[in-house]
Amino acid sequence: MKDQFYNYIQQLQDTITTKLEEVDGKATFHQDIWDRPEGGGGRTRIIENGNVFEKGGVNISAVHGKLPDTMKNLFGVMEADFFACGLSLVLHPKNPFVPTVHANWRYFEMYDEQGNIINQWFGGGQDLTPYYLFEEDASHFHNICKAACDKHNATFYPNFKQRCDDYFWNAHRNEARGIGGLFFDYCKPAHDMTMQNWYDFVTEVGNSFLDAYVPIVEKRKAISYTQEHRNWQEIRRGRYVEFNLVHDKGTLFGLKTNGRIESILMSLPPHVQWVYNHQPEKGSDEEKLLTVLQKPKSWV
Amino acid sequence: MKDQFYNYIQQLQDTITTKLEEVDGKATFHQDIWDRPEGGGGRTRIIENGNVFEKGGVNISAVHGKLPDTMKNLFGVMEADFFACGLSLVLHPKNPFVPTVHANWRYFEMYDEQGNIINQWFGGGQDLTPYYLFEEDASHFHNICKAACDKHNATFYPNFKQRCDDYFWNAHRNEARGIGGLFFDYCKPAHDMTMQNWYDFVTEVGNSFLDAYVPIVEKRKAISYTQEHRNWQEIRRGRYVEFNLVHDKGTLFGLKTNGRIESILMSLPPHVQWVYNHQPEKGSDEEKLLTVLQKPKSWV
Repeated sequence: MKDQFYNYIQQLQDTITTKLEEVDGKATFHQDIWDRPEGGGGRTRIIENGNVFEKGGVNISAVHGKLPDTMKNLFGVMEADFFACGLSLVLHPKNPFVPTVHANWRYFEMYDEQGNIINQWFGGGQDLTPYYLFEEDASHFHNICKAACDKHNATFYPNFKQRCDDYFWNAHRNEARGIGGLFFDYCKPAHDMTMQNWYDFVTEVGNSFLDAYVPIVEKRKAISYTQEHRNWQEIRRGRYVEFNLVHDKGTLFGLKTNGRIESILMSLPPHVQWVYNHQPEKGSDEEKLLTVLQKPKSWV
Repeated sequence: MKDQFYNYIQQLQDTITTKLEEVDGKATFHQDIWDRPEGGGGRTRIIENGNVFEKGGVNISAVHGKLPDTMKNLFGVMEADFFACGLSLVLHPKNPFVPTVHANWRYFEMYDEQGNIINQWFGGGQDLTPYYLFEEDASHFHNICKAACDKHNATFYPNFKQRCDDYFWNAHRNEARGIGGLFFDYCKPAHDMTMQNWYDFVTEVGNSFLDAYVPIVEKRKAISYTQEHRNWQEIRRGRYVEFNLVHDKGTLFGLKTNGRIESILMSLPPHVQWVYNHQPEKGSDEEKLLTVLQKPKSWV
């Protein structure tokens, strides 16, 4: 399974970066291959200062070794070897009318002393963070998510949509990071799902990513915008930073377990503002976004 | 003691904001009075878009009530009433040659069921975060800190300077946030120090703040700078954000105990950049700063 999934994310990284370069039309991905001293490494691909993408990363990694202390506590085990691989991407477009997107698909294995697998699961998801709300874009993104889920189990979309809203909740602001999508974790054999069924589901979602995101980019990337639109985008990007540094378990786990800092923090936006007590005008498009973030809704 | 110290920080807030407005010459502080539903409140004063100060806050608060759960765990007590007051300030100058400064002076009391004080202490400090290193500025700041300490105890400066370097360590970057200053906490009656002696010490440091910082501002505020200098400043401000949101106990405590978010996050800089894997040129002024941040040194 680990070879099967790692092959998949290698190919998916190629597919996604090739397509995004085509969409951007100017910038190309810069690649950094890195090694993890304790075992494994990754292939980080970064795009900066494009026509469309101001900053973004589409990264894969496959790491293994002794389970770090923080994970031992999390999983309640003493000592174990582990393997983990995944693809993580974040794209911050330049145009405030094009949403930021995040996605991640990952696989994890734990072994006993004889090297037998004692635990394994998939996790991941994809979610959208607009600066200006186009309801049809939110619906499009969620409909693609739902279609990928529905091929496997009718309960997946409502369940994983709710978990996404719960997870990307910026608690200290009392608002969502964005308009959500899918979030799932600890996907293990249970009921009628084998690991191979979960593999089929996770790769179905991975394969849906470009269909979920690219049409929105194409539709909004040429809308003209003012400095005021940019200011709002940069202020909202501040909330993105706050979520990732204060609440995001993946980021904090990476920072506290000596992960590759630059690959982890590629998720942070290029230009960001913090303005004291910023409040959008009543009835403005900016306020309309906040209303939806403060009370996540159904998009399908 | 609580009335004595709260009177002091009220006056100190006036003294500091009056002087900073004079230094700025354009912007004035905007005041927000706020109430804490569970007891107490604060007086937030924010300066934005000045000649000198791009963003900053000089805030006081005095809060009381039942000890929040997070503090119960911290102090190992079941139930208790508490009172806490303090002044917190952060100033982010526009000119990259003028350093950011942070300071805080605070007092805390805990009570038993009869309202008797069962614990009380002072805490605080002040520290400097330059974007370009002027060794004479770092020495000036530390010498003022040392002079304030030396009037009370010759061990204070070396001890609290070291604790400052330890506290403001951006562990995931393996570098200090800035060039340090003073950090002290849990200052209680012990050895030859009464609470009144600690009050005298803490207010001595508070009174030294303007002497420590303003001469540096006056000396550097008119240096001309380029967009490259600004870019470096904004990238370094990103490290400031990372420290405050990932490591700073005061910020995290505030965010997780329903503090007034806008008063807590006034510490975040106005314009910030994250650039993937940014490395200063060999032998540049930017690299010279990093050398000092990676290995804190003596400035007196």
